[in-house]
This record gives sequence, structure tokens and C-alpha cells, in this order.
Amino acid sequence: MSISKRRSTTPADSPPPVAGNGLLHRRALLGQGFLLAGAAATGFGASGNSAAAEPLKDDPWSLTMGDPTPPRQGPSRFEKNVVRLLSNPNHEPRNSHARTPHHMIQGSITPSALHFTINHSGIPDIDPAKHRLVIHGMVRQPKIFSLEDLDRYPMVTRMAFVECGGNSAPMFSSEPMQVSAQQLHGLVSNSEWTGVLLSTLLDEVGVDPKAKWFLAEGGDSCALHRSVPVKKGFDDAMIALYQNGERVMPGNGYPMRLLLPGYQGNMNVKFLRRIKLIDQPAMSFYEAKTYSQVLPGERFWRFHFLQEVKSFITHPSFGHSLKGPGYYDISGVAYSGTGRIARVMVSADGGKSWAQAALQGDPQPMAFTRFRMPWRWDGQPVVLLSRAWDEAGNVQPLRAEIVAARGQSSQPVKNPNQFINQHYNSVTSWGIDSKGEIKHVYV
Amino acid sequence: MSISKRRSTTPADSPPPVAGNGLLHRRALLGQGFLLAGAAATGFGASGNSAAAEPLKDDPWSLTMGDPTPPRQGPSRFEKNVVRLLSNPNHEPRNSHARTPHHMIQGSITPSALHFTINHSGIPDIDPAKHRLVIHGMVRQPKIFSLEDLDRYPMVTRMAFVECGGNSAPMFSSEPMQVSAQQLHGLVSNSEWTGVLLSTLLDEVGVDPKAKWFLAEGGDSCALHRSVPVKKGFDDAMIALYQNGERVMPGNGYPMRLLLPGYQGNMNVKFLRRIKLIDQPAMSFYEAKTYSQVLPGERFWRFHFLQEVKSFITHPSFGHSLKGPGYYDISGVAYSGTGRIARVMVSADGGKSWAQAALQGDPQPMAFTRFRMPWRWDGQPVVLLSRAWDEAGNVQPLRAEIVAARGQSSQPVKNPNQFINQHYNSVTSWGIDSKGEIKHVYV
Repeated sequence: MSISKRRSTTPADSPPPVAGNGLLHRRALLGQGFLLAGAAATGFGASGNSAAAEPLKDDPWSLTMGDPTPPRQGPSRFEKNVVRLLSNPNHEPRNSHARTPHHMIQGSITPSALHFTINHSGIPDIDPAKHRLVIHGMVRQPKIFSLEDLDRYPMVTRMAFVECGGNSAPMFSSEPMQVSAQQLHGLVSNSEWTGVLLSTLLDEVGVDPKAKWFLAEGGDSCALHRSVPVKKGFDDAMIALYQNGERVMPGNGYPMRLLLPGYQGNMNVKFLRRIKLIDQPAMSFYEAKTYSQVLPGERFWRFHFLQEVKSFITHPSFGHSLKGPGYYDISGVAYSGTGRIARVMVSADGGKSWAQAALQGDPQPMAFTRFRMPWRWDGQPVVLLSRAWDEAGNVQPLRAEIVAARGQSSQPVKNPNQFINQHYNSVTSWGIDSKGEIKHVYV
Repeated sequence: MSISKRRSTTPADSPPPVAGNGLLHRRALLGQGFLLAGAAATGFGASGNSAAAEPLKDDPWSLTMGDPTPPRQGPSRFEKNVVRLLSNPNHEPRNSHARTPHHMIQGSITPSALHFTINHSGIPDIDPAKHRLVIHGMVRQPKIFSLEDLDRYPMVTRMAFVECGGNSAPMFSSEPMQVSAQQLHGLVSNSEWTGVLLSTLLDEVGVDPKAKWFLAEGGDSCALHRSVPVKKGFDDAMIALYQNGERVMPGNGYPMRLLLPGYQGNMNVKFLRRIKLIDQPAMSFYEAKTYSQVLPGERFWRFHFLQEVKSFITHPSFGHSLKGPGYYDISGVAYSGTGRIARVMVSADGGKSWAQAALQGDPQPMAFTRFRMPWRWDGQPVVLLSRAWDEAGNVQPLRAEIVAARGQSSQPVKNPNQFINQHYNSVTSWGIDSKGEIKHVYV
């Protein structure tokens, strides 16, 4: 029997690396066939041996009728560890964070079950038939909208990330905290949202040109409210009614939330019940205190709405370990509050050399883009980094640049829920030792 | 106080319709402001009245601490009806269908909890650490892959629909069945899948050029297996490991399934345990009998893999009713097994005149595209239709064309689970009477 490889057009020798410590050119994966087979010969895929050596047997689940089909399906019982990390598991009367397990999921969409949430007075159990949205203040005609009303309005569907202004705050610590991407970056998630553009409703109530801001208020018992420039309301703000196809999850604002693509999560007011057009910011609790961006020298920024360009590697990352040298797929997510991701560069040598990662699908504005980089690990210590650029030309800063501009803690921080400062977006670095153990490092 | 509308550039008179019975030009929605307000004056939005008339009060959920934050979140208790429809709720020893509630969801992504499933011997409870994938037959080097092995391979992420070849089969009935889009079209769903391209593994085992097909076999107790042309294996077939970010749902093939973008669902073998390279189709049960396409005159097609271009309106549709004249947003999904959706046309007069719908986002190949069409209903009887074109130039057939080519039942069919024939993809028509009641009609 004549056997030859398909689509192999070059001799089976190793393709040139594109950057230090084993980052590979993508054409190494294009039908060459030798890359992974070569890896197998040096320790890759312990079970990837000849089929003849381990004859196929019927597993117990192949011998009996399986389980019933449920009306709603959920993950396998073997995936019970793929959950959000809770900051307040005993439901004490304070805020409660639930972080997305980025190191355990893939692709660009965050499953709604695992979308991060922060709630300051629990999750209200809202009857959608009784909930109302009021738009009033500096308008020609104030209006009250029921969910049934809004369901008849023109809708739009778009991808968008939502990120807490305090996401990645553990990286303001003077020493790298030894925690996972879930602890560091779990306060950002990405969904497909469907709803009514706020501009449609603002057109209908008729906004006074003197109105420069609007106050958005939630129906939770802390009545969380924030001020938003009215321009954002006309640009791309949405009253989101659906999240990944279903009604918005209770923790994400059921039955309706404000979506401000690219703006800090807290402003994307959940359980939205009121929008008031006003001529100056209301200086509410969260904008006057919590989200004030602190700078060195006792200065601060009064407002900092934008979630700037960021990326982080999710695979491999802290919490994983490498099972010996050979091929690995490096991947992660990148996003920017100022548009589409244009480019992600990856380094395996702590930033000395870089290679361009492949982006999956067509990057969408203000949404996650999954990036991938082929890599062959030689078993020596390495440091993996990713760095993103957006279509507006913004580049993700190095850590030294953030620290110079915004400072860091004077002492190492132990508690990831101690939000030292806001809007941290530098590169994240994972150090891998010769045993394949992974640590969070600063380079 | 001087109040004027923003971005209003034309006098506030009605924009011209783009097709009969009230289909509107999209610019009617662009900041004109009068469209929906005008609708309100003629009965739109009963509660859209002056805020002064109904002072804002605190709802009970705004007065107390809310509910705890769970590790995995699910929908509100008020959404308990948004579930799949089961054909075998008592888990009798036969096949079991669960249909996606298209008339109750939005956007383009099917939530994994609501992805359709058909299983012929229940859902196997597979231990991912013990599951193996074998590739053998006409190959240079047969191999066994564990899930841990595959997790190290180069991965890709893409959107793709999966559709049962029998989806929409109720429309082969000689009379239109009075059932929802869930019953008619609930055997198609759309997800973001992440996994390893089959071509990567085929390159590694080395395929004999004489191998023209491969057999794919599942680990369920019916060992469901199908033959697939080897070209599809090299083109875009994937060993899918993740569905919308999480591990593949148990009913969709946990821990791994074959994904053949655009090919009938049954071939996308779940619980995938074996791929055997062969030189002719195996003529397995499902390809030799169940999925043989029957034609008039006692002829049939031996194979019909492709799920061809289709669309259907989900909002409004059977199961909804219109609450009086005024503005409504018509929307639905379109998809094609031969590429991206290029265009969707909508008619409100039974197909006499058509207007082009807006497509949401950047259409992806072999994936759902959500379409939208602005519409003002005047309260008279109408018939709504949608018709899709793909980038390859294929057009969704009218019902008469399908019936001429493939026939229909001789008697009206009562049971939507009686699969008369396969691969039905004509337009679906919803007739709306003057009371706003919606029926399934043939035009």
C-alpha cells in the first residue's frame, strides 16, 4: 500500500522559529505533518502511540442506554470545577464579586453562566411585567417604558466585553501575586448583546441640547447610579435585553441593563429603571469616590471611563503545568474600549523578541478577540507575554510604563479583592520553570 | 427651555415604505424620532405615557438586600418557559429530540443550554480522562489520542450552525402545521466551537491517497457512525472540544464531537471515539436508510450532505400575537451550508413585494446571521416571509419549488416528529389576521 502525506510540499525538516524560545511560524501547522509527530518523538502525547499497542475496547458508557434529555442542558458532572470564583460566598451584607474562569474556557464568548458579576446589594428578584424604565429630566416628553414596550422597538445585536474598572488591580501590587488569570483578570467577560439603542429612545423623548450628561439608575436596593456623557448615549449605548440569545442573566441586570461598549463596567447600570437627562455630572458615590483614578503625587483623575487596550494569555497560565517539552498552543484574549483589535504580539523570552499571533474570526469593535501562537517548548525556563494593539493605534503598556504613570503598592498585596487602584491594563507575564510549573512574574 | 431633536435633518413626515404592507426604509430609524412617537399616537406603547401621570415608585425588590451570587448563574425564575421542547420526555428506549425555542431567543448565538440535541440511545456519561479517539484504517501510523493530548494541539475557534437533516420536515405536510418556529425549525442551532482541525490529525497519521472516505463513530451505545468524504476532513472538519467557551455539552457530544460545517447534523458524530480511513462509504444504518432523500417517482438521492441556504422569521411568529397596530421589529435567522449569508429579503404581502433586511455583525461562513426589518403594521391581514441568498449565489427556494422537486405528504401530517422527508429549506410564511393572531400558512 502506497502511503504518502497530503499537501506536504517541503522536506520534513523543522520550520524556522519566528521568535525566541520556540515561537513558531504558523506555516509550521499548514499540512506539514511533521511538527507534532516530531514532538511525539521527544515526549509529546504519551498515549499517542500505535493503536495496535492498545486495542480499542468498549467503555462502560458505550454498553448501556444513556441519560435522559433535559429541557435545559448543563455541563458534564466532570466539569464541576469550571465555575466563577466568589469573593463573598456566605452572602454577607456587602458587595459580591464572581470572576470568570478564563484559564478554563476557550474561544471569545463567555458563557452566560460564567459571566463575571459584581453586585453591591445582592441580586434583585425582579418581576419583568412590573419593571419600568423612566426617561425624564431635560427632555421634551418624559416617558415610561415597560419591557413589553421595548420588545417592540428596533433592536440591534452586537458583541461587547464588559470590564470592571478594578479588573487586574492585583497587578498594582509591588510583588506579583501568585494567582490565576481568573483572580487577576476575571472581572471582564464578553457576550453577544441584543437590545434597543438608547439613541432610539432619546430621539423619542427629545433631548434638550443643554443636557450634557445623563444619570442612569438601577432598581437594586443600593440604587446604583452613574453619570454618562450624553454623547455616549447617542453614539452606541444600548438598553440590553438579551445576553448570548437569552434574557439578560439576573446577576447581569435582568430584565434590562445599560450597555456602554468600552466603558467601565460600573457605568453599565444593571436593573436599569431610570435615565435622567442633566446638565452636569451628578457626582454619585461611585463616580465621586470609588472609581476616582489615583495618580502619583496626590493627584487623581476625576473621570476615567474607557477600558483601554489589553490582552492576557489564558493557555498556558497560572494553575496549569506543562507535561514535558514539545508542542503547545499559546492562546489568550485581547480587547479594547476604543475599537477592534488590530494585532497581538507574543514573546516567549520575557519581551526580548516577539512574534505576531493569529487572530480568530473577524475582530469586532469593543469585543474579545481570541489569539493563538504555535510554540515548541524545549524544557528550559521561559517567560510568556502577550501585547495588544487596537485599530486606533493604541498599544498595551508594559508594566513599567503603568507603574511610572500610576504607581504601585508600597507593600506586596495579599488580597486580590483589595482594589488599590483602577484601570490596570499592562501586559501579564507567566514564568515557566524547567519542571513546567507556572508562576506570575513581572518583567 | 429650548428643546429640539438631535440629528433631525428632515421634516417630521413619514418616510417612504420600501415594500408593501408597511415595510420601512432603515433610515426611518436613524435619528428621526417621529416614527415610534407617531406609532404611540396610534396605539403604540400603552404605558409609554407621560412620566408625570405615573409617579416612579420603589418596587419591593428595590427595598431589600437581593439574592446571593451563585458559582454558575442561570436565567431568572420568570424565564422558566424558555426551554427546549422534548419529543421523548419520559426517556423511553428510543430516540429523543430537544428543540431550540427560536421564537423566544434573540441574536445569533444559541445558548448552549438551549442547543438542539437528538440522541438515539440517551446521553452517555463519559469520563473524559478515560475517553480515547482512535484514528486508523488506511493510514501510515494509526494513533490513539486522549483529551489531554488534544488539548495540546493547535486549536481554532469558529462559529458554525449544526442542523439535523430532518429539520423543518413538518413543512413537507400538505397542510401547514399550526406549530411554532421551535417545532418547525428547532433542530438547528448555532455556536462558537473551538477544537483541533481534523486535517492536523490526518497529517499526523498520514492518509493513504487511496482513502476516499472516513468512517466516524461515536462512543454512545448505538455507536452511531457515518461516512464522510475525506476531502471534507482536510477542508474544515474539526474535533470540537469547546462549545461557546465551555466544554461541549453532554447532549452535544462531550467530551469531543466531529464538526463538519454545513453538513447535516447526524454526520457531526458526537462522543467521537473512532475515525477509520476507508476507500468507499460504509453504508451505515443512518446513511443507507434514515437520511436517504426521497424524490417523486420512487427515486432517491443516495447522499445529500449539505444543509442548503435557509432563513425563517422568529419575531413575530406563531406563538406570539400583535398587540394592535404600530411599529414592530421583524427579525429572524439565516444560514447556509455553502458559505456566508449575502442577503435576506423580507415581504409583508405574501411575496408580492420585497425589501432588503439589515444583517447584524459580519456574517460568518456556515453560521447564523440575524436579520432585521423595520415594519409598521396598519392592522390589516398580512403574510410575512423571509428569503435568503448566500455568497455562492444560492437562493432559498419557494415552497412550490421544493414540492415540485421533492414532493409532499398525501395527507395533512399531525405529528411534527414524523419525518416525511429530509432537507427542507423553503421560505416559511406567517399569516397575521386583523386581531394580531399568527398562523403558519403556505403561500
